[in-house]
Amino acid sequence: MQKYFAKVYVSLKPTVNDPQGLTIRGALDNLGYDTVESVRAGKYFQIEIESASERDAAESVEGMCKQLLANPVIEQYDFELTATG
Amino acid sequence: MQKYFAKVYVSLKPTVNDPQGLTIRGALDNLGYDTVESVRAGKYFQIEIESASERDAAESVEGMCKQLLANPVIEQYDFELTATG
Repeated sequence: MQKYFAKVYVSLKPTVNDPQGLTIRGALDNLGYDTVESVRAGKYFQIEIESASERDAAESVEGMCKQLLANPVIEQYDFELTATG
Repeated sequence: MQKYFAKVYVSLKPTVNDPQGLTIRGALDNLGYDTVESVRAGKYFQIEIESASERDAAESVEGMCKQLLANPVIEQYDFELTATG
């Protein structure tokens, strides 16, 4: 078994309203960052997993995203996988 | 002015307890993903910004992280910047 490290990025689909992102954009504007055009807020997960192969690890992480980490109705996800020690 | 797209990753420092991550790990275990060793939960922001140069954009995003997006006491951050249209 090999260890893998996955970085998972979950964000709202582009067509979905993001009130949290709008609020952050407003706060940044108040702080003087007035050239910010948009902010979208999402989730970030760092996952350590043991798998027989990189392919197995990717399949597992894909499954986790679909079943738990992302809501497929309104969210999209992406991940990067690296082999570790 | 040039447009830039920043992906900002905010995560808890390694020494900080992450009850959300532990809960997700437990839930993944219940779903059959029993080779997951650890899960850390964080935040992910997608920011569109106009700046005169990539250096200016990086400085702005760095400032946003320090002032608003991350809590420097318990969180660490990282970001990637790409020039867009």
